[in-house]
Amino acid sequence: MSDYGQAFALMRDAAAGPWRDYTRHAFVEGMKDGTLPRAAFLHYLRQDYLFLVHFSRAWALAVVKSETHSEMLAAVATVNALVTEEMQLHIGICEAEGISGDELFATAERAENLAYTRFVIEAGYSGDLADLLAALVPCVMGYGEIGTRLAGEATSETYRDWIDTYAGEEYQSACRAVGKLLDQALTRRIGADFAASPRWERLCRTFRIATELEASFWQMGLTP
Amino acid sequence: MSDYGQAFALMRDAAAGPWRDYTRHAFVEGMKDGTLPRAAFLHYLRQDYLFLVHFSRAWALAVVKSETHSEMLAAVATVNALVTEEMQLHIGICEAEGISGDELFATAERAENLAYTRFVIEAGYSGDLADLLAALVPCVMGYGEIGTRLAGEATSETYRDWIDTYAGEEYQSACRAVGKLLDQALTRRIGADFAASPRWERLCRTFRIATELEASFWQMGLTP
Amino acid sequence: MSDYGQAFALMRDAAAGPWRDYTRHAFVEGMKDGTLPRAAFLHYLRQDYLFLVHFSRAWALAVVKSETHSEMLAAVATVNALVTEEMQLHIGICEAEGISGDELFATAERAENLAYTRFVIEAGYSGDLADLLAALVPCVMGYGEIGTRLAGEATSETYRDWIDTYAGEEYQSACRAVGKLLDQALTRRIGADFAASPRWERLCRTFRIATELEASFWQMGLTP
Amino acid sequence: MSDYGQAFALMRDAAAGPWRDYTRHAFVEGMKDGTLPRAAFLHYLRQDYLFLVHFSRAWALAVVKSETHSEMLAAVATVNALVTEEMQLHIGICEAEGISGDELFATAERAENLAYTRFVIEAGYSGDLADLLAALVPCVMGYGEIGTRLAGEATSETYRDWIDTYAGEEYQSACRAVGKLLDQALTRRIGADFAASPRWERLCRTFRIATELEASFWQMGLTP
Repeated sequence: MSDYGQAFALMRDAAAGPWRDYTRHAFVEGMKDGTLPRAAFLHYLRQDYLFLVHFSRAWALAVVKSETHSEMLAAVATVNALVTEEMQLHIGICEAEGISGDELFATAERAENLAYTRFVIEAGYSGDLADLLAALVPCVMGYGEIGTRLAGEATSETYRDWIDTYAGEEYQSACRAVGKLLDQALTRRIGADFAASPRWERLCRTFRIATELEASFWQMGLTP
Repeated sequence: MSDYGQAFALMRDAAAGPWRDYTRHAFVEGMKDGTLPRAAFLHYLRQDYLFLVHFSRAWALAVVKSETHSEMLAAVATVNALVTEEMQLHIGICEAEGISGDELFATAERAENLAYTRFVIEAGYSGDLADLLAALVPCVMGYGEIGTRLAGEATSETYRDWIDTYAGEEYQSACRAVGKLLDQALTRRIGADFAASPRWERLCRTFRIATELEASFWQMGLTP
Repeated sequence: MSDYGQAFALMRDAAAGPWRDYTRHAFVEGMKDGTLPRAAFLHYLRQDYLFLVHFSRAWALAVVKSETHSEMLAAVATVNALVTEEMQLHIGICEAEGISGDELFATAERAENLAYTRFVIEAGYSGDLADLLAALVPCVMGYGEIGTRLAGEATSETYRDWIDTYAGEEYQSACRAVGKLLDQALTRRIGADFAASPRWERLCRTFRIATELEASFWQMGLTP
Repeated sequence: MSDYGQAFALMRDAAAGPWRDYTRHAFVEGMKDGTLPRAAFLHYLRQDYLFLVHFSRAWALAVVKSETHSEMLAAVATVNALVTEEMQLHIGICEAEGISGDELFATAERAENLAYTRFVIEAGYSGDLADLLAALVPCVMGYGEIGTRLAGEATSETYRDWIDTYAGEEYQSACRAVGKLLDQALTRRIGADFAASPRWERLCRTFRIATELEASFWQMGLTP
């Protein structure tokens, strides 16, 4: 089992059904056994590039909302990794598939994509760092769990590169760092017993909605 | 034809297809001829109450983003009307239908609802008043146009109250005031020839997306 | 002693020195005994008009940051009172003194004024409603306390209108409503024992800084 | 003469008096001839560390407000340089002077410092990227100009390290990149003839106020 911190584990358990729908979605299982059509994967990749643009903006907002030097450092590292590495990775994969950078930039944002990213950013603007992180972690940690599971269970090599990226130590280490940031941000703002706070229910609700929007994102991936 | 100002007319024409899908949606036509099932209408009303909560927040953001006393006055008047009148109206109608205030407050927000309101508020936080208004006007003006058209074309009395609210002089006058606010906000920030500005395309894109999200909202209304 | 709620009383006691510097500033004492030069008062009034513009924006941000219908109603009522009443009052007083509305609007914002309002709005954007209210209440409640005290202690009629406004039942009632909003917002987000929370120190720091910026504002009033 | 782009040159010329007060402040001249007391310099450094914390947050907000990949890359590079280099530099200098990291973090924020950073961040939250950049550039470019001038005019070695940092190619290159970002952001949002736009006056006003707040910051440096 992944160890991405205490708060994440509690939030995930409070959204067990939606979490399963997300992390075991047909799109994911199709990457596992190689039955996912290439067209669906490429459609997903193009949308995921746009997603990363806004997800990077959301992590930059986490820098703005930081209250300590260590929160700031953790958030800056994530923004940097997203913008200078993960976005470049998508550009590279798409170019290898014959999708030019210009075509990628010009992709029209699908409603499911828009709904997810704007929900996250709005939660961040309207709340504090804890509210923002509750909306950010389902994406970060879900990909981490999916990568780890598929690295063990995959019966096809077709989507091996994607799986290796998220199962890899670099990504897993980022997940643990985000888990630590979440635990510390909640402890700083609410106290060590954060799950007993009146805020907890709302934070879990934010986490659950983001999880449901992740499942919708996979579903969109199946319908190019 | 409605006269809700110059910028609105240009933005609507630039999104002619989505605008038709929105203002002539099957939900709307069902209110016109009375065939819309009551369950669909009540489902819509409950979601629309939650919509109004966030729409009021978005208009309050317009106060925050105002740069002149007259912008501030126009935005405050709208927030006030939304919170002290329109939200109360929904509470009243729902109570008359046996839906208590507590039940109304506890309604779960549907994905189509969430997608729309968060898009509007995020556009407002991330941009200036012009960006925010481009996202707000499709709702305000679309209801104004629908109300006016249905007041003339309705063949059933079933949804007369709803139609009269939006066809009425009070609502129509609010639409004209918002149209004037939009024209003035654009002129102040961009110049009188705002449609020739490099910003115009992005503003029209914001308007079009909000219009598409309005159509999705009606569609959601049809599936309680 | 004023009763503006539990959280305010605790925050004020935690900032006892700055609170005294603010509420018993030479500017205030000059209004009490009538020795405050008219030029200083009018200079203050002009700056206070600009202050109210941004203070209204800050209260509108409280609407955006509301999480319940009752929070929203309380914040909307305050924005409305500020924009449609208090700002008009300033315009009226200034016009009676020969300062036209245009002159008032064109007043250059003094550094002390700018520093205060931007601090409050930034606290609101970056935090949640609790952070914003901690920055807003020193102004609201301080004027309430000063008004009440001067109504009893004033030895001159020169500034009687100003004193009566803030000592009056309407303003005092607004202070109590804001005190209730603060207590409820903290209880909702932190719990009934909010002063034992790790957030409390930061909230008190925000309150204290806003109090110090109020004292600077009076000081600015003395130097037209 | 520095070449930090077209918009900066125009904004600086529109604020010529305040710009001179800022870039030729007694604090600066004291670094030039070595007469600046060490205590004043260290006091300034401590406050400047806190300034950098909030300045980094403001640049992170520029990432949030970016509308293109190239805007995003430029803003991310700046955040990264500020947080992982410039803030570390201050920590290093202060430690060499016997000021521990803990002491640095615990420094109380002076009013002049607070006023400046909150003004910048609020301008960014309330406006778009153009508004934010207009508030950010006086600091970036002013240090660039001061560094370049003092590198040629300094008659003392006392503050050579500070001067070399800002006169150095790395910092100068960052200034040119920010100048390019500003020109492109304005062209994208307003058009090539941005100085003829109705927005220009407000942008210049933001630039001028930030410049005045920079001068106040030096003045604060003189009074530990």
